[in-house]
Amino acid sequence: MELFFSKDIDGSICRLDQDESGHCVKVLRHRSGDEISVIDGCGTLHRCRITVDSPKGVEAMVLSSEEGWGGHPYRLHLAVCPTKNNDRYEWFAEKACEIGFDELSPVIGEHSERRVLKTARVEKVLISAAKQSLKAVVPVVNEPVSVKEFIAAQAGRSFADAQDDKGEVQDGRERVQDGKGEAQDGDTLRLIAYCFEDERVPRRSIKEVLDGFDGTEIIVMIGPEGDFSKAEAEMALAAGFIPVHLGASRLRTETAALTAASAAYFRYM
Amino acid sequence: MELFFSKDIDGSICRLDQDESGHCVKVLRHRSGDEISVIDGCGTLHRCRITVDSPKGVEAMVLSSEEGWGGHPYRLHLAVCPTKNNDRYEWFAEKACEIGFDELSPVIGEHSERRVLKTARVEKVLISAAKQSLKAVVPVVNEPVSVKEFIAAQAGRSFADAQDDKGEVQDGRERVQDGKGEAQDGDTLRLIAYCFEDERVPRRSIKEVLDGFDGTEIIVMIGPEGDFSKAEAEMALAAGFIPVHLGASRLRTETAALTAASAAYFRYM
Repeated sequence: MELFFSKDIDGSICRLDQDESGHCVKVLRHRSGDEISVIDGCGTLHRCRITVDSPKGVEAMVLSSEEGWGGHPYRLHLAVCPTKNNDRYEWFAEKACEIGFDELSPVIGEHSERRVLKTARVEKVLISAAKQSLKAVVPVVNEPVSVKEFIAAQAGRSFADAQDDKGEVQDGRERVQDGKGEAQDGDTLRLIAYCFEDERVPRRSIKEVLDGFDGTEIIVMIGPEGDFSKAEAEMALAAGFIPVHLGASRLRTETAALTAASAAYFRYM
Repeated sequence: MELFFSKDIDGSICRLDQDESGHCVKVLRHRSGDEISVIDGCGTLHRCRITVDSPKGVEAMVLSSEEGWGGHPYRLHLAVCPTKNNDRYEWFAEKACEIGFDELSPVIGEHSERRVLKTARVEKVLISAAKQSLKAVVPVVNEPVSVKEFIAAQAGRSFADAQDDKGEVQDGRERVQDGKGEAQDGDTLRLIAYCFEDERVPRRSIKEVLDGFDGTEIIVMIGPEGDFSKAEAEMALAAGFIPVHLGASRLRTETAALTAASAAYFRYM
C-alpha cells in the first residue's frame, strides 16, 4: 500500500507538494482518475481521486476519510538529547515512529556535547517512516530547548503542587516512595531515565512504573552520552518526574530512547 | 571503562590481536605494567597487567577473572532473515547486542530478496557493541541457512513429538489452542513471528506468550520483507514453533527483530 503525505487538505480537495507530486506522477505514473491514499500526519487517512496529475502539483478529490488510522492506544512524548552522531538520532526517530510515538522534543542537557539539531531532517525521516509503517500520525518535532526549560514547561500542575506543598525535592521523593506518584499526578506520567543512583530517590524499572500507571499520556526524558546532571535530575524530581532505569544493560542514548518507546508499546499491547 | 576483546586467553596469559594491540598501545598509549580489562566473548571479564606492549601483539598476565560479567537472565537466539540493505541488519545486530541476546542465525526465506550475508562484518559489529555496552558475551553468529533447514535443525524433541503424535499441523495447532505449548515444550520456547493471519492457528502477542513461559531459553524467527511463506510457517508450527505477532504496528524486518529482543529483555526485567 502506497501512502502520500499532505498538509494541504481542505475537506474535499487535497493537494500534494512538489516532492510528493513528482513521486506520484513520475515514479508511480499515477494519472487523473486514479485513486490514491493520503495521510494528513494528524491521524486521518484520506482516500482521494486524482483530478490534476501535474508532477509539480497533484490535486485530488477526497472520497472518504478515516480518523485514527494506524494509531496506538497511548500518547508518548519522548524528550531525547541529541546524539553526537546525527545518523543515530535519525535512526532512533525512524524506528520509534514505526513502533509508535507522538511527539519528539530534542533537549540539550548540561552534559550534551551536541547542542544543535536540525529538526527539518528529523521531520523528513518521520514522514517517510509513518508512510512506510502505515500510520496516519506523523510525530511532532519540537524546536530544541534546554533540559531545564523542558522540565519547567512540562511540570504543569505537579510543579505547582511541589511548591505549594512540602518543597520540591520532598515532593519528588514522596512520589517515588509511595509508588503512586504517577497515579496522583493524574493525566500524565512523567519519567526521567538516568544512569546514576541517588539513594534518596531510588529508581524503579520503567516496566514496573508503566504497569502501575492507568492513564495513557506518557513523557519520557532520555539524557545525553554524559547522562543528565544531578541538578537536572533534582529539578525533574521536584517537578514530579519519576526516576526510572531501563534495566541492567548499558544502552546508548538512541537505544535507550527506542527501548523506552518499546516499553510503552508493550505496556498497551 | 575501556574493554579489549581476545579469544587468545590461556588461564594466565592473554594476547591481543593486531587490531586490539594497535588500539591499546598506539591510541590509548598503554605500556607494560598498565592494567587492562579484557572480555573473552564467552561471558568472562579478565583483569590483566600488560607484560609486552607491542602494537603488533600485546601480551598481558591475567590477574583475576569474573564469569557471567554483564550478562542477562535469559538465553535468546534470534533467527533473522537478511534485509535488502546490509546496514539495517548490522544496525539491528548492534542494538540487539546492547539490549542483550546470545545467538544470531541469518536465515534465508523463500521470499528473501537478499540470499547472502557476510557474517564477518556482523561479528565485528557485535564485538564492538559488546565492548561498548560492557558485556563479556559476544553473541555467536552462525552461517546462513535456509529457513527450512533452520526449523529442521531447531525442531528437536518437539518435532519428534509432532510425528509420534497427532500429526504435524495438529501438533502445532494444539500448542497454540491450549496456550501451554511453550510450557509442554520444556526447556526452549520457539517462536515464529509472521504477519499473515491463519484462522486455524491464531497468533498471540509475543508479550503474552513470553509472560506464560517460565523457562529462559528462547528462539525467535523473524522473516524477510516479503514475510515467511505459508509452507515455512506450516513447517515451523509442525516443529513446535508458536506463532506470534509483535503488536499492531507494521515493523520493518530489523525493527521487528529488535522489538522481539526488547520483549525478551522486558520479560526478565
